[in-house]
Amino acid sequence: MELNPWATVDIQDYDELFEKFGLEKIKLIPELEKNVLFRRGIVMAHRDLDKFLGAVAKGKPASILTGIMPSGPMHLGHKMVVDQCVFWQDSGVKTRVLIADIEARLTRNVMPPDAKRVALEEYLANWIALGLDHTKTDLYAQSNRSIPYYDLSATLSGRITLAEMSAIYGSLSPGKITSAMIQASDIIHGQLPEYDGKSNVLVPVGFDQDPHLRMTRGLAEKEGFIKPSSTYHRFMTGLEGGKMSSSRPNSFISLNDSVDVAMKKADRVLTGGRVTLEEQKKLGGEPDKCVVFELETFHFMPDDKELADLKQKCLKGEIMCGECKQILKDRLKKFLENLAVKREKAKDTVVGLDVFR
Amino acid sequence: MELNPWATVDIQDYDELFEKFGLEKIKLIPELEKNVLFRRGIVMAHRDLDKFLGAVAKGKPASILTGIMPSGPMHLGHKMVVDQCVFWQDSGVKTRVLIADIEARLTRNVMPPDAKRVALEEYLANWIALGLDHTKTDLYAQSNRSIPYYDLSATLSGRITLAEMSAIYGSLSPGKITSAMIQASDIIHGQLPEYDGKSNVLVPVGFDQDPHLRMTRGLAEKEGFIKPSSTYHRFMTGLEGGKMSSSRPNSFISLNDSVDVAMKKADRVLTGGRVTLEEQKKLGGEPDKCVVFELETFHFMPDDKELADLKQKCLKGEIMCGECKQILKDRLKKFLENLAVKREKAKDTVVGLDVFR
Repeated sequence: MELNPWATVDIQDYDELFEKFGLEKIKLIPELEKNVLFRRGIVMAHRDLDKFLGAVAKGKPASILTGIMPSGPMHLGHKMVVDQCVFWQDSGVKTRVLIADIEARLTRNVMPPDAKRVALEEYLANWIALGLDHTKTDLYAQSNRSIPYYDLSATLSGRITLAEMSAIYGSLSPGKITSAMIQASDIIHGQLPEYDGKSNVLVPVGFDQDPHLRMTRGLAEKEGFIKPSSTYHRFMTGLEGGKMSSSRPNSFISLNDSVDVAMKKADRVLTGGRVTLEEQKKLGGEPDKCVVFELETFHFMPDDKELADLKQKCLKGEIMCGECKQILKDRLKKFLENLAVKREKAKDTVVGLDVFR
Repeated sequence: MELNPWATVDIQDYDELFEKFGLEKIKLIPELEKNVLFRRGIVMAHRDLDKFLGAVAKGKPASILTGIMPSGPMHLGHKMVVDQCVFWQDSGVKTRVLIADIEARLTRNVMPPDAKRVALEEYLANWIALGLDHTKTDLYAQSNRSIPYYDLSATLSGRITLAEMSAIYGSLSPGKITSAMIQASDIIHGQLPEYDGKSNVLVPVGFDQDPHLRMTRGLAEKEGFIKPSSTYHRFMTGLEGGKMSSSRPNSFISLNDSVDVAMKKADRVLTGGRVTLEEQKKLGGEPDKCVVFELETFHFMPDDKELADLKQKCLKGEIMCGECKQILKDRLKKFLENLAVKREKAKDTVVGLDVFR
């Protein structure tokens, strides 16, 4: 299996990734256990996370870098990175968030006026509603960063061959090459003297983004920077099973969905129920195959005991899918209503931000 | 034959270039006849020069763009572009000069501290000594331009395929691709609203740089800019015949050569003389094969009548190579002495210029 940051990747076997790309499994420590995504193994892999944590523990300069791709609707699959970013920010780690508008332009054909609107109103407003403190965040758009940032990107392009890039990314184009080099500068430029100087950076991503990390770690080493650390979260299953895809609205719940639309989508969510009620009462449900249970696990049931109890009840056939789904729907409704209020408030903030040219 | 901006190109047959790449021969008009390089057919080919001249004549916004590659010694071969630039500047055309330090870094491995020193002290000081008015020039280094300039370069990279680039440039690397895209932005960015807005630009180059022009004209058209115009000058022959090459110091006279060194090189310049003096007196010399005559034509004998007289005398066997070479040596000595004085003065100016980061 190959990973590709520019295509929808359907990962069937995470173990294969660990072996093939040399990712490590995350070892939980108390600091990480505070976060539900780490605790539940949703953020499951890393490169050099231990080095990053060591630097943070010693009070050395360190930062989190995450990106907003202003393309398509922002959905629950995107929320995982926000949750991690907020977790690190709340832990006192410096936070840097980039809007990947050059990448959106070069790899998804999203042009400037749309990129700006989508980035600010559809994404950033939700990030703030989900807890990001933008006043404590170094927020920038790739199209409007700084001369040292672009110059670094040019320098890095001279440190790799086309063959090496093809081995990492598969098929290339000048636009993809430019985009990858800008991403490498996103990850490294915090270490320039004009920013924090040599320092540790942690990049929380989905597995599909690993090619950027693999290339950038090699480039960082060649140029005398500290190799960036990264964590990898599992992907969410599509609502009706299979993979979640931005091109199929019924495969995800968008953070901008109305409650009505979201409830209809929730009604169709694939469960781990048996064919008949009778059978389910006898055999119990299958929470590990249930997208409702996954949604609770990833997003809506942060209390571990509550989640464990639900799982037990399901396994014993004590709760049927209808009742269980209603719990999800109630929480989803509350979440979306709450988020919408905060997002509308945040929109007033974001339109005033001086991020784009 | 292929042209390659990143390798030494030996052009044997200029006519082939006209056909293969669709270059046009320059038609002299009084404005151009004022300049010795145009008048003598040294600047011999163009793309859309007529459109550029039309815009200038109508008082529309127009500019000249030329580049300094801060790599290797500046020699007489480089002087031709300076002479043209000064000609256009003196004609009242806006002048923009870039220091191609990103290209030098990515294609010739010249790193920042060297690039800065070479660009300012070895090149720019000579440009000023040769007549460039830097106070009337928009001078910049590629590594230190502006956000819109880098952003344009990224946009342009998305408008071409690898196959199209390979057809123009031959073998590529990520560094060469970045370098070519930065060059495209060099040529086009003057048309951005942050600079002059939509406008005509003329790029005087040697034939080896035509790939940049071919690619950039296509990109400009796709992005709704005016296609850049360009002129092409013939290459100088190496002092001892064959091609001039920066890696063979005896093939060129550097503007920084001491008079002593230059005189020794001049002594070895290939002439169009016959095997014996007797034969030469009988048959006359061959000025068209004579590098001394070429040096006079390109650089040291701006008076057409004087040059024509010399040619006649040579053809009739009335002047021998020793005497003729002495004329060259006297002029070359005077030129270098005069240039050195001006250059040393210009060095005080260039070190104070705020061009690099």
